[in-house]
Amino acid sequence: MPLGERYVGDKSESRYCGVETDFDDDMTNLLSFNIHGGFDFLLATLMNPDYRPSLLGDDTSISHALPFAGSDLVLSPSQWNSHVVGKISSWIDLDSDDETIRKDSEIALKQEIAWASHLSLQACLLPTPKGTSCANYAKCLNQILQNLGSMQLWLRIQLDDSEYDAEERNPDHMGEGQIDSWELWNSFRLICEHHDHLSVALDILSSLPSSSSVGRWFGEPVRAAIINTNSFLTNARGYPCLSKRHQTLTTAFFNHSVQIVITGRPVHNIPVGASGSSGENPIEGGWRHPLRSYLDYLAYLYQKMDPLPEQERFELGYRDYLQSPLQPLMDNLEAQTYETFEKDTIKYSQYQRAVAKALVDRVPDENATSVTTVLMVVGAGRGPLVRASLQAAEETERKLKIYAVEKNPNAVVTLHSLVKLEGWEEIVTIVSSDMRDWDAPEKADILVSELLGSFGDNELSPECLDGAQRFLKEDGISIPSSYTSFIQPVTACKLYNDIKSHKDLVHFETAYVVKLHRVARLAHNQPVFTFTHPEYSTKKSNQRYKKLLFNIPSDTGSALVHGFAGYFDATLYKDVHLGIEPSTATPNMFSWFPIFFPLRAPVCVQPGNPLEVHFWRCCGPTKVWYEWCVTSPSASPMHNTNGRSYWVGL
Amino acid sequence: MPLGERYVGDKSESRYCGVETDFDDDMTNLLSFNIHGGFDFLLATLMNPDYRPSLLGDDTSISHALPFAGSDLVLSPSQWNSHVVGKISSWIDLDSDDETIRKDSEIALKQEIAWASHLSLQACLLPTPKGTSCANYAKCLNQILQNLGSMQLWLRIQLDDSEYDAEERNPDHMGEGQIDSWELWNSFRLICEHHDHLSVALDILSSLPSSSSVGRWFGEPVRAAIINTNSFLTNARGYPCLSKRHQTLTTAFFNHSVQIVITGRPVHNIPVGASGSSGENPIEGGWRHPLRSYLDYLAYLYQKMDPLPEQERFELGYRDYLQSPLQPLMDNLEAQTYETFEKDTIKYSQYQRAVAKALVDRVPDENATSVTTVLMVVGAGRGPLVRASLQAAEETERKLKIYAVEKNPNAVVTLHSLVKLEGWEEIVTIVSSDMRDWDAPEKADILVSELLGSFGDNELSPECLDGAQRFLKEDGISIPSSYTSFIQPVTACKLYNDIKSHKDLVHFETAYVVKLHRVARLAHNQPVFTFTHPEYSTKKSNQRYKKLLFNIPSDTGSALVHGFAGYFDATLYKDVHLGIEPSTATPNMFSWFPIFFPLRAPVCVQPGNPLEVHFWRCCGPTKVWYEWCVTSPSASPMHNTNGRSYWVGL
Repeated sequence: MPLGERYVGDKSESRYCGVETDFDDDMTNLLSFNIHGGFDFLLATLMNPDYRPSLLGDDTSISHALPFAGSDLVLSPSQWNSHVVGKISSWIDLDSDDETIRKDSEIALKQEIAWASHLSLQACLLPTPKGTSCANYAKCLNQILQNLGSMQLWLRIQLDDSEYDAEERNPDHMGEGQIDSWELWNSFRLICEHHDHLSVALDILSSLPSSSSVGRWFGEPVRAAIINTNSFLTNARGYPCLSKRHQTLTTAFFNHSVQIVITGRPVHNIPVGASGSSGENPIEGGWRHPLRSYLDYLAYLYQKMDPLPEQERFELGYRDYLQSPLQPLMDNLEAQTYETFEKDTIKYSQYQRAVAKALVDRVPDENATSVTTVLMVVGAGRGPLVRASLQAAEETERKLKIYAVEKNPNAVVTLHSLVKLEGWEEIVTIVSSDMRDWDAPEKADILVSELLGSFGDNELSPECLDGAQRFLKEDGISIPSSYTSFIQPVTACKLYNDIKSHKDLVHFETAYVVKLHRVARLAHNQPVFTFTHPEYSTKKSNQRYKKLLFNIPSDTGSALVHGFAGYFDATLYKDVHLGIEPSTATPNMFSWFPIFFPLRAPVCVQPGNPLEVHFWRCCGPTKVWYEWCVTSPSASPMHNTNGRSYWVGL
Repeated sequence: MPLGERYVGDKSESRYCGVETDFDDDMTNLLSFNIHGGFDFLLATLMNPDYRPSLLGDDTSISHALPFAGSDLVLSPSQWNSHVVGKISSWIDLDSDDETIRKDSEIALKQEIAWASHLSLQACLLPTPKGTSCANYAKCLNQILQNLGSMQLWLRIQLDDSEYDAEERNPDHMGEGQIDSWELWNSFRLICEHHDHLSVALDILSSLPSSSSVGRWFGEPVRAAIINTNSFLTNARGYPCLSKRHQTLTTAFFNHSVQIVITGRPVHNIPVGASGSSGENPIEGGWRHPLRSYLDYLAYLYQKMDPLPEQERFELGYRDYLQSPLQPLMDNLEAQTYETFEKDTIKYSQYQRAVAKALVDRVPDENATSVTTVLMVVGAGRGPLVRASLQAAEETERKLKIYAVEKNPNAVVTLHSLVKLEGWEEIVTIVSSDMRDWDAPEKADILVSELLGSFGDNELSPECLDGAQRFLKEDGISIPSSYTSFIQPVTACKLYNDIKSHKDLVHFETAYVVKLHRVARLAHNQPVFTFTHPEYSTKKSNQRYKKLLFNIPSDTGSALVHGFAGYFDATLYKDVHLGIEPSTATPNMFSWFPIFFPLRAPVCVQPGNPLEVHFWRCCGPTKVWYEWCVTSPSASPMHNTNGRSYWVGL
């Protein structure tokens, strides 16, 4: 039965807990024993471990039945499908120096996967590659993957605790056995071209690598974490528990839909007669599964997690889902889009704070009743910034005259009705025009806009405000007064695969808005482009070029970069800011997901080697676009040359 | 006028020699001076070197004419096109830290290339990247390349003489300025995605790098070599000459269609009144171009080269031209193909030697008249191996009975008429059958076949001979008795670009037969697969797997691997062999060009790091295919999984 329910209707796969079992001819009993014991599924060896194809003899005239554990009839199709993950024979070693073992391995691997496929299992667990080489294993598996149907293959990889520093990593100094298991996985999946049916099951040992090293796995397709009973500690009452670091890791797995599997023999002597920590009654008159106390502990961890905030639950469906950025300048937004963004009260309260501060700075208390400040909202949409500005005026007791400029005629309709409804006719003048063309009747003291995209300037705020700046007084204030974009390199297997599935160049040269979840952030953010408003310099240009050097912490080990996560931070006015850059992000604001710039070919970075990246913001007569490339550790092709794949229309 | 003629109708571009000139407003005179002086083309600065866009001022209402050297009318279109390579201003520095220089550079670069394009020049020379970074330069050029038409852009790169060893190359030990110019070029062209209008002009200095390092350039699109007058030595008579190593390099350039350009001031004082070493009369009453003696020396070097052998001349058109390998098993060869291959007398004389040795070994002299050896030619085609075998019998005075087995019914027609014409009816029995199906009336002493492809087993010799082995006596001899394939990593820009132009995966996963020419061989050949005949082991299989580790000589520097050149060597009988593996190749044999296995993404190998490569020969019920991948320095995807792109039909 599931570990718990984190919220009503919890559908996370990580609620289901499995148990690894030994080979057993009696599959019916094996399943029933473990399901009644509280587990949701088995990691079950399908083939007798003594079987070796080469021992069968050459007499092909006799039909041999392969020594699988029972026929397909011993379980119902739905039992096979829901409760059994097939465990491929662990003796298999496709990169053995012994050719007989290699050939036996290839035959057995194909037979077992074919059988698992015949049973419609959801997944198979593949044995850990032995040694440091895995090319032949990867080659055979890659052949199998081409015709596999929907079954997932979980490659079993040990989460090893070897620590890395640049010195040790020198190939001359590194011994044969010392290979980072992530690198083994990385070679494997590069050979298999990130096949999306190939994923990882991590063996969790009693000691853990550095958190930077572990962190890499959260950008990978990890489906299961196998925890051995001897990785558990013992608490004061004699029950199994996990170290703080293991607890944190387990919780992170729960958060990333990773299923936990218990393996090993019970090594804790639970006091006789004690009931499970879950408080449930033991099944069938006191009988308890020998591993029940481990399961109970995991259920306790699951249930102890903070409930998922409503906003997070709402965004569950958006996790790692790639969206094309809006083009609010070229396209007119729809009512539903306005509706969604207007609900972001935090954003508007920040604007209100900024306008309030600007009003107070501009009009001293003694002039509050005599001076009317001219404020223009450019890109007024359906009016939320007009409302925020009016509230700021009320709060500061300043007099305001507002021009609400909006180019979308559909939004203007709603704006008119809002002004009428609220009785703002005396204060607010609605202008149905593109701010770049409008001939303003007077100049503004304050220019308020919200034209920011996830990457700051990517919805052409600079170009729009350049146009609007004409009607700002020379000492006038722009809110926002500046904004800066940020990027950081990430491992993001899921995003890479989604982009790759389009099988074209265009999708690899497009930036996406995406709620990043299954992502490993490999280095700190760095600022990219900054724009300041107003900007009166004579040689101004909105073109930008930035070279960035990222140093990935050396205890990470090697890492694969699938692209760059992008964010922005905007200074609205003085100390009032707004943004999604993780270290300074405005809490509880939901208008912006991060942006993601993919790389056409993922770049592998070795410890101690910096990652050098270049970003350009390019401007043409009808469009603005980004180009990007990597030049170190090796040069990538230029992405999005001349904006061929992705651009923002002016 | 051209440097010479290596053979009648010599069309090599390297016959034409250029001269680099300073900026000169009077282009008409400049051209006439140099053409009359004996040069074929100019490397001419087009724009006044004092020009900087930012100095023009902001007044855009005044129309400025850019300070180009005269209007397009000063030369005729054909003069511009045939005799001028435009030299882009050398002050241009797109990666300067100074933003004004960067912006000026971008504007000027675009203006000058647009002007050169307007003049329909064949090529422009681009200034050497300054410093170690070139991303912004590459980005601008890449934008320009997308809309360039047919003009070539030659990036000027200094052939520097920095020597490399693994120690120095450690990024921690390497200073800012120490960058291998090849690496600069490599980054540049990777960013520009191997654009085929981007090529190289090499500046040749007085000292040269190691020959491994220089060798890399022969896989690159080098169009010109610019030799400074001060790189010349002085001979006993006071004339300019080149060092031995420079001579070798220059000859190699001539052989690779690289044009030489002379630059610099005359630094040799030629004795007054002396005539040119070419023996021609000086032009216009004793007037000689000040650089004439350098030109004459180059002409001397050109004319001194060995004349191109007829075979090489015949193969000129095949250089670096990708062909699909033959499928003689699945398809029937055409008459023309037989015709071509039958002309390879060397090949058949090797077969004759092998058969002769086998006959003598098999039948002692004393039995020469009493014993008749049964020899079967399997894959007899139109009969050349039958003839070779009969000649061997005649030479050794042994008695022979021949079965000529051929599955192509069209070749059998010709075979019949040959036997009749030659009066071989008593000796030769023609069998129109696939050797794998034929039910032989008796067993053979000697089985002769020539089923070898460029990669040995790639035309399915193993599978065919497995079939034919049934009718070989237990102690019988197979000619060939074994064959081995070999590969080596190569830089091969031209081949890579030709494959890339198909814009699909299939062409990157196909092996090609190709006369390799513009190729840098980066490491020694290594053996891949060996097949031996006859083969009686019970567990025999024609599947193969080989892991290879290539160490690129450390004085090469970094190198880019576009794929693998493949060869074979066959032991026909005892010490008689036949093959194209370069170190042991049979001289003057032309039946096989090498094979080329491409890589989907070229792999960059750093000095001191080995290149690990895996090759598989896979066999299915209807086809045989290869798969290949690289696992070090980083893992490539598997190529040709399940033979999806390229296979040989059974």
